[in-house]
Amino acid sequence: MKFQKPYLLKEIAEIINAEFEGNAEFPVTGINEIHKVTEGDITFVDHPKYYKKALTSKASVVIINQKSEAPDGKHLIFSDDPFRDYNYLVKRHVNVSKQDQQIDPSALIGNNTVIQPGSFVGKNVTIGEDCFIHSNVSIYDNTIIGDHVVIHSNTVIGADAFYFKRRPDFYEKMISCGKVIIENHVEIGANCCIDKGVSGDTIIGEGTKMDNLIQIGHDTVIGKNCLFAAQVGIAGTVKIEDNVILWGQVGVNKDLVIGEGAVVYAQSGVAGTIEGGKSYFGSPAIDAREKMNQIRHMHKIPELFNKKTS
Amino acid sequence: MKFQKPYLLKEIAEIINAEFEGNAEFPVTGINEIHKVTEGDITFVDHPKYYKKALTSKASVVIINQKSEAPDGKHLIFSDDPFRDYNYLVKRHVNVSKQDQQIDPSALIGNNTVIQPGSFVGKNVTIGEDCFIHSNVSIYDNTIIGDHVVIHSNTVIGADAFYFKRRPDFYEKMISCGKVIIENHVEIGANCCIDKGVSGDTIIGEGTKMDNLIQIGHDTVIGKNCLFAAQVGIAGTVKIEDNVILWGQVGVNKDLVIGEGAVVYAQSGVAGTIEGGKSYFGSPAIDAREKMNQIRHMHKIPELFNKKTS
Amino acid sequence: MKFQKPYLLKEIAEIINAEFEGNAEFPVTGINEIHKVTEGDITFVDHPKYYKKALTSKASVVIINQKSEAPDGKHLIFSDDPFRDYNYLVKRHVNVSKQDQQIDPSALIGNNTVIQPGSFVGKNVTIGEDCFIHSNVSIYDNTIIGDHVVIHSNTVIGADAFYFKRRPDFYEKMISCGKVIIENHVEIGANCCIDKGVSGDTIIGEGTKMDNLIQIGHDTVIGKNCLFAAQVGIAGTVKIEDNVILWGQVGVNKDLVIGEGAVVYAQSGVAGTIEGGKSYFGSPAIDAREKMNQIRHMHKIPELFNKKTS
Repeated sequence: MKFQKPYLLKEIAEIINAEFEGNAEFPVTGINEIHKVTEGDITFVDHPKYYKKALTSKASVVIINQKSEAPDGKHLIFSDDPFRDYNYLVKRHVNVSKQDQQIDPSALIGNNTVIQPGSFVGKNVTIGEDCFIHSNVSIYDNTIIGDHVVIHSNTVIGADAFYFKRRPDFYEKMISCGKVIIENHVEIGANCCIDKGVSGDTIIGEGTKMDNLIQIGHDTVIGKNCLFAAQVGIAGTVKIEDNVILWGQVGVNKDLVIGEGAVVYAQSGVAGTIEGGKSYFGSPAIDAREKMNQIRHMHKIPELFNKKTS
Repeated sequence: MKFQKPYLLKEIAEIINAEFEGNAEFPVTGINEIHKVTEGDITFVDHPKYYKKALTSKASVVIINQKSEAPDGKHLIFSDDPFRDYNYLVKRHVNVSKQDQQIDPSALIGNNTVIQPGSFVGKNVTIGEDCFIHSNVSIYDNTIIGDHVVIHSNTVIGADAFYFKRRPDFYEKMISCGKVIIENHVEIGANCCIDKGVSGDTIIGEGTKMDNLIQIGHDTVIGKNCLFAAQVGIAGTVKIEDNVILWGQVGVNKDLVIGEGAVVYAQSGVAGTIEGGKSYFGSPAIDAREKMNQIRHMHKIPELFNKKTS
Repeated sequence: MKFQKPYLLKEIAEIINAEFEGNAEFPVTGINEIHKVTEGDITFVDHPKYYKKALTSKASVVIINQKSEAPDGKHLIFSDDPFRDYNYLVKRHVNVSKQDQQIDPSALIGNNTVIQPGSFVGKNVTIGEDCFIHSNVSIYDNTIIGDHVVIHSNTVIGADAFYFKRRPDFYEKMISCGKVIIENHVEIGANCCIDKGVSGDTIIGEGTKMDNLIQIGHDTVIGKNCLFAAQVGIAGTVKIEDNVILWGQVGVNKDLVIGEGAVVYAQSGVAGTIEGGKSYFGSPAIDAREKMNQIRHMHKIPELFNKKTS
């Protein structure tokens, strides 16, 4: 998330009441999670395991829970709870809509686009031309939808990321400040959920088609011309390349890549990165032919034991 | 789909700007996909593998991408892209509702039927007597619902079939011209999706009861008094006979039959036709007792290898 | 369910036109299913297998399909169909809302709580302070929601239990008379379904967080600070203790307990009660390390057979 206008480093430090090291007049342009952060922005780190990653990231300012020297070109803000202070800064800049109207007046809606009764469109939403938004769809703030997009009834675009930090007695929610971007010629079925990004964006690539009851997690990026059958579930921060086919009820774990043109058979579970151009089956998913071969041999297993004991 | 009044063969050929062979004055009564087509209707075929099937189907008119002689009683229309021309003809006769009202004035709603706030009812919908449609349900055009039917909140009846043809650079959507028929005494849970037929109808048989978050694909026909637990997913063009029980999260592949009284245990995947009167388990689903036996022996497998290597 | 004021035993018997044994003036205070019934209440039993359980339950009145002596402190009502008569009595006291307004005037809504457009709130609903109910949510009658609760779009709270009695020719629905209780600081994702209790209540414990497209069955009780990923499905009358984590697409069978702090990996199926403090995987779910070990050995199975036949 970029701020509407930059803050000075000393202003940021004052907002969260913290000490800092570096140029007090440095202009801070935005705030983002470690994987998405760009130059001029703030990120945070609260575990020694990730100190190095944060200090060598593109962030210009790091909120950190250990006093140390700032590396060249970096600025540090010292906090006893960097997650809390990061979330506080994000929250100041994210206003959840409390609108009374089903379609917020700030929404930009293209020519020849139909929005059926009962659909809700939040603040700062853009919808292109020749789209058809069926009844009772919910579109959260800041969503961007291209041209020739179809969204079937009761689908939800842009709900919050499922991202919580464990505290001793409760879970603290990471405030989502990303959005959903749906490119041209995408079709999304009924009762689907596409969550907004935590810090980056969740993107559905041009020409991709989804059936009903599908879950797409936060910050996941899906390529062009993919085909997902009903009840597929994809976790957060996944990258799915072009022309991938996922059959019904497939589950995909977080933080992985599915290569271009991969096909995953029904009910499989993708546990780690898989290469493109191949077919997969099983939970965890492996090469489809190997899995089929295992299944064929499964039938003989009981017989094997009977022989051995007789 | 039947046309409101017949076209002459020469009129159809003119609409899609194509040559034809046969009686120019032949009255064409409708258009349908190869599995559902009836006498007097048009179908299409674009792959040599299916030429024979199309030419011996009940269709009176076949749009085909190879010049050939018309068999007795058939008429041919020659096209370089039969899918495109078939879709074009269907599209001319399907008008997607752009209605402004939540309940279209054309809907016929029986005595003593309650439709709660937020529900959407499209054009030419019929709902019988003593039904209860809970809040925020979406019912697409042309749906037919019998008497004593309960539909829980946020369920979607009649969204488009998930049916796309792969083109070199994109997917082209097959226009759905079928509908959903829900018979008497059916109860459907919350957040379910029942898609309309591509060319025939999706039918939910009398007395069948469904839990929440269930997916029923296009042209699937479900018998009487079936029981489906939550998160079941059934693909397109499936036939499920009477008294079938599917437990939670079961997946059913397309183009198959589940015989009368079959029971499929939770999380199973039905990959092909299965006989009635039996119980099934696993993905792919097999006889439940055999699967249970395999699972029991699975526990001994690691031990077996340890013995062999020691 | 407690009656608004007690009936005399003879009045109850008259309503269902049945004979009875016991004190005609006994004040009957409510009606409940055998597992939830409390002193002063009616329950029913229609199978000899459960006669003893019913007659030794906390119920003061038992509707039973066999003439017999009433045990000490119990009263009997004789019926040829106890399920029908029980359901009839419940139905007299449950009025399903036919309201015309999206938010029923009887709803009590706390300070600083936002209910976005398109959401439906039934009769006698209570929502606490500082809650955010996103667009197109459906909340059925009698639901109780605490403070600081977030519910994302198109979720359904309080739909009927999926609970049917098989009759020779059809399924008869058990009328739900319980409700849903959501405690403070709970967050529920988009397109979820939380069913009301059949006779008791479905409870989501304080601080629990749920992702999208999740199913929670009737009378299920979930502890504090649990975390459920997308597309989890939990059947009815389950008890989940505090701090349980269920990953994506996990299924949980009915009538079981998941112990405190248990973790169940993605796509697993929990078939019976499991202990707390451990990790589980597979369908049916077993100790996660044991399952992983089985899977590692699965790869060698085909090779094993090849050796044996060569």
